[in-house]
Amino acid sequence: MRHHFSSRAAGAKRSPIRELLKLTEQPDIISFGGGLPAPETFPHEELAAIAQELLLKEPHNVLQYGTTEGSRTLRTEVAKWLSDQDIHVTLNDLLVTSASQQGLDLICKAFFDPGDVVFCGLPTYLGAVQAFNLFQITKIGVPLEDDGMDIDELESRIVAARREGKRMKGIYVIPDFQNPSGITLSLEKRQRLLEVARAYDLLIFEDNPYGHLRFSGEPIPSIFSMDDEGRTIMLLTFSKVLAAGLRLAVMVARGDLMDVLVRVKQPTDLCTSKLTQMIAARFMQRHGLDRHLAEIRPIYRAKKEAMVAALAKYMPNDEGLRWTNPDGGLFVWVWLPESVDAEEMLPRAIAHKVAYVPGASSYVDGDGQNTMRLAFSLCTLEQIDEGIRRLAEVVTETIASLKAGARS
Amino acid sequence: MRHHFSSRAAGAKRSPIRELLKLTEQPDIISFGGGLPAPETFPHEELAAIAQELLLKEPHNVLQYGTTEGSRTLRTEVAKWLSDQDIHVTLNDLLVTSASQQGLDLICKAFFDPGDVVFCGLPTYLGAVQAFNLFQITKIGVPLEDDGMDIDELESRIVAARREGKRMKGIYVIPDFQNPSGITLSLEKRQRLLEVARAYDLLIFEDNPYGHLRFSGEPIPSIFSMDDEGRTIMLLTFSKVLAAGLRLAVMVARGDLMDVLVRVKQPTDLCTSKLTQMIAARFMQRHGLDRHLAEIRPIYRAKKEAMVAALAKYMPNDEGLRWTNPDGGLFVWVWLPESVDAEEMLPRAIAHKVAYVPGASSYVDGDGQNTMRLAFSLCTLEQIDEGIRRLAEVVTETIASLKAGARS
Repeated sequence: MRHHFSSRAAGAKRSPIRELLKLTEQPDIISFGGGLPAPETFPHEELAAIAQELLLKEPHNVLQYGTTEGSRTLRTEVAKWLSDQDIHVTLNDLLVTSASQQGLDLICKAFFDPGDVVFCGLPTYLGAVQAFNLFQITKIGVPLEDDGMDIDELESRIVAARREGKRMKGIYVIPDFQNPSGITLSLEKRQRLLEVARAYDLLIFEDNPYGHLRFSGEPIPSIFSMDDEGRTIMLLTFSKVLAAGLRLAVMVARGDLMDVLVRVKQPTDLCTSKLTQMIAARFMQRHGLDRHLAEIRPIYRAKKEAMVAALAKYMPNDEGLRWTNPDGGLFVWVWLPESVDAEEMLPRAIAHKVAYVPGASSYVDGDGQNTMRLAFSLCTLEQIDEGIRRLAEVVTETIASLKAGARS
Repeated sequence: MRHHFSSRAAGAKRSPIRELLKLTEQPDIISFGGGLPAPETFPHEELAAIAQELLLKEPHNVLQYGTTEGSRTLRTEVAKWLSDQDIHVTLNDLLVTSASQQGLDLICKAFFDPGDVVFCGLPTYLGAVQAFNLFQITKIGVPLEDDGMDIDELESRIVAARREGKRMKGIYVIPDFQNPSGITLSLEKRQRLLEVARAYDLLIFEDNPYGHLRFSGEPIPSIFSMDDEGRTIMLLTFSKVLAAGLRLAVMVARGDLMDVLVRVKQPTDLCTSKLTQMIAARFMQRHGLDRHLAEIRPIYRAKKEAMVAALAKYMPNDEGLRWTNPDGGLFVWVWLPESVDAEEMLPRAIAHKVAYVPGASSYVDGDGQNTMRLAFSLCTLEQIDEGIRRLAEVVTETIASLKAGARS
């Protein structure tokens, strides 16, 4: 039946990494692989009470179809919450989605014809790359620096793409504690990114799943809040700040941009679950998202600190070896010595009962073989220490065997 | 910002009907418009107990990410339930989706390039037409007869499309109590449809949201169950048999067809809500879907009978006026005299405090002006009687004024 497949389906490959990570679900493996939120942060008792109450008292609401735009109650709560962060939007600027991955699908649908160009980080979020691939979008990578995307390099790649007659649509960026690198885009660079987007008439897709998980340092305003032209679409999600299993997110955009997103969402799924929407809305009304965030941030901070401390304690002294120390989010990023291929090293790691995500799949230019992503979110502090100890053994062995190979 | 829109976005129009129907949400209007399940069929007390229990006892399961394929527990229950209906599938033949509208989105993604052809009924489901439009798919309509799609006509349109060099992919069909017409495809025609699909190497997209809502007559086997070549994809949904607000459905397909659907689902939304999946799975385990269906079918039967009785009682005697009398589902379909335009008549109906869906939007060939869809599912028996009484007044007035216009 394969002759019936669309040409876009060829771009939808099962991720070999994801398949490999399925092997790591054995209980004796310590996995830093999946970017899953810490389950102990789920306010499950509060959600249980809310779900029960909604189903008993408002079944005709929560069990019925809703509007494509999303629940007014939820959007009202989100607008209030954003207003407290000095982001002022109306309900019409908010679209509820079935998590942010759907938001990326809607962006692809609304703005990209095959061959159109999106600019993204080197590295960038694998799920976004998969969405771009499915829609046959041309991805042009831009290197990240310690303070985020290299804006000079971005501009020169835009100029080059323009010279080649490419149809450029926008820049995809995860400004806070980026997945996979943990890197944050500085305030100055956010300003410059907006200037570049304006100068070359590009949209900005600001994916912000981790911004509210800042556990140290000062918050930096979102690009959306600094954009007075309305060319930014911001994706916020409940996956990391409340519960991933709700599959619930909110897109923030104005005017025509929002209008087209609503129009493409309707044939995509008619509407997002009213039940999950109302569970989140009631949680915001009753408990407050900021109060909850204040409770869960220390959990992530402790895990990040445990991971960075373990890396310092166990990793071999090698000048090619370094890692990020993020102020928030879920991930630490490791650069291994250039001779080490993290994907080739993974079977050895699994044999040592520890797992990670090799970084190369997050590079749209085929680079990044010597990088890996470590999620500190899912493990306990003890598992983090033990897992990094095992991983350091693997790295030490790998470097040693490469050196032996080089000598022989 | 409109110059940034994709060419496909032009195919995503807000439905004017849907916008008009928003006006009908006033409480004094009796609306036969939206195809919403009867809210009194939602087993909300059972679902409340299940949701609470799941959130208290399995939060790390139901609030976390799941696999793209869907919960094994839910797929196991669905496989068992289908086995009782003599449809034998493995878990790998089942893909959980965020309701069947997402299933249509995945079908469009997996199989259709712009310009590829799908065959569908005249009329057919508006939501499917919207999905086909978004993916720039060429829709070729085939008239429905009282026992479903005219298969001779289908074959001659396939031959004509082939002669024109069109790339044909499949046939979209809602075999049981079709939306919008309520018409059921006969057993003989299901067999012939499969033969035609085989002869011309087409896929069959069997959308079956209503098949289990049969309240009279004998069930007819699904096309999927009669297909020994594996060219049929069946879409089943919990929207009408459990609760629409869960946004939960299951696609049934084999081999390569299932493989590509899973591959395009991953970048679409990563996974469907684990919470809603486990609520449905637990309901099936604990209460049984067949027992629940046995309880809710009489509710739909009574409503359908009330509507058909009211139509017979109130509608004027006019030889051009007739309607379907379905054995299941949610809809009665009305053919008005050819001179009546149901869309033009709608404002008059709303003035009389009754609403319906004009049929023309369900015809991909621009026909059907004199048809309308009446959903009997949402109203009470009293509202059905009163609503049809009002509607009959509107029809009577409209016919009279057209005759007066013709005379003058």
